[in-house]
Amino acid sequence: MPSTTTYAPSARTTPTRLRERVSYDRDAVHAALDEAVLCHVAFVVDGAPVVLPQLHARVGETLYLHGSTGARAMRQAQTDGIDVCVTVTHLDGLVLARSAFHHSANYRCVVVHGRAHLVTDPAEKDEALRHLVDAVVPGRSDHVRGPSRRELAATAVLRLDLVDVSYKHREGPPGDDEDDLGSPWWAGVLPLRTVTGEPVPAPDLVPGVEVPEHVRGWARG
Amino acid sequence: MPSTTTYAPSARTTPTRLRERVSYDRDAVHAALDEAVLCHVAFVVDGAPVVLPQLHARVGETLYLHGSTGARAMRQAQTDGIDVCVTVTHLDGLVLARSAFHHSANYRCVVVHGRAHLVTDPAEKDEALRHLVDAVVPGRSDHVRGPSRRELAATAVLRLDLVDVSYKHREGPPGDDEDDLGSPWWAGVLPLRTVTGEPVPAPDLVPGVEVPEHVRGWARG
Repeated sequence: MPSTTTYAPSARTTPTRLRERVSYDRDAVHAALDEAVLCHVAFVVDGAPVVLPQLHARVGETLYLHGSTGARAMRQAQTDGIDVCVTVTHLDGLVLARSAFHHSANYRCVVVHGRAHLVTDPAEKDEALRHLVDAVVPGRSDHVRGPSRRELAATAVLRLDLVDVSYKHREGPPGDDEDDLGSPWWAGVLPLRTVTGEPVPAPDLVPGVEVPEHVRGWARG
Repeated sequence: MPSTTTYAPSARTTPTRLRERVSYDRDAVHAALDEAVLCHVAFVVDGAPVVLPQLHARVGETLYLHGSTGARAMRQAQTDGIDVCVTVTHLDGLVLARSAFHHSANYRCVVVHGRAHLVTDPAEKDEALRHLVDAVVPGRSDHVRGPSRRELAATAVLRLDLVDVSYKHREGPPGDDEDDLGSPWWAGVLPLRTVTGEPVPAPDLVPGVEVPEHVRGWARG
């Protein structure tokens, strides 16, 4: 019986090196997917790899991908789906070691392999698009005009089940060699994070509409 | 004769939609590649796509990719190279429209297609690794212990020529439909950017070593 707290490792998600950095923890995977605004989706066109950024939303163990940036992929998916690899990466810090060799990054990375299918059921598509808006800005879907029938038809959504999934991360200080510890070079971590600037209202905004709390309070990580 | 200021469009880099967002401007491509700490590299394994984050450095019209996270790719590359797609994405802001449909993101994205080759020449590899360290933290390579012969042998570097390259970006306010402009919803852009936290010295740092200027002054974008 599959574990409820971890994904089952597969040939594809079993690391060939740095095994200590890999896990299959569902909570860690969910948190990293949910925190990310965008993912990178790879697929194969005429035998060659292509990777593009896309917006995504996780709903339980399903990942929805928005169709706007991957028209080629959406057309390929129309018959019996398309094999994809979806990767989300959070760069948490630069790891500066005494040696060039041990320079690294602190990061959290989720990799999902599988066959993605076009969402054709209108109710599921409508719901998925709502989740896609809320994944970018939580609560936003209650403060917009919902999609018209024409807009729904112009939008493609892919669904991908979270089955073949791995989580890789590094944290903490540099891992310098013993011999380098006495050297005079500064070593440590430079933390990185994403922050928001002041919201920029649309120039044609109806006068008097204030920045709402779901925008003002947006934060990640 | 090829233009000196733009890349030549190819079948792969000619958009099927949203043509106004695509260009081939070398300066824009170089700036976006140089600003990014990491890229996403896609390749094909047993017919299926794989995409992983990696560190990169641009030197003129060459992109160097560090081997630490893509051991499978490095093995594939050993004979006559490996077809890759390298994508760098900067998420500059969330574009919040009055309609769900016109929600978008402001971004800059470079996509490079081509065959990457292992760097085998020791001098080029040594130089490429120096560039890889400096691409993450400019000036850093003068403040570290350089790689030993053993470390050089344990590191793989791929080189990819910048030939089949496109640049896609979106900026500015939401593009709502005329009919939605009078609606009461707030619309605008929430800018995003990456910032550094306070540098965290390694716990085993030699006492008295101060945070150097190349770390203190690190900034992107």
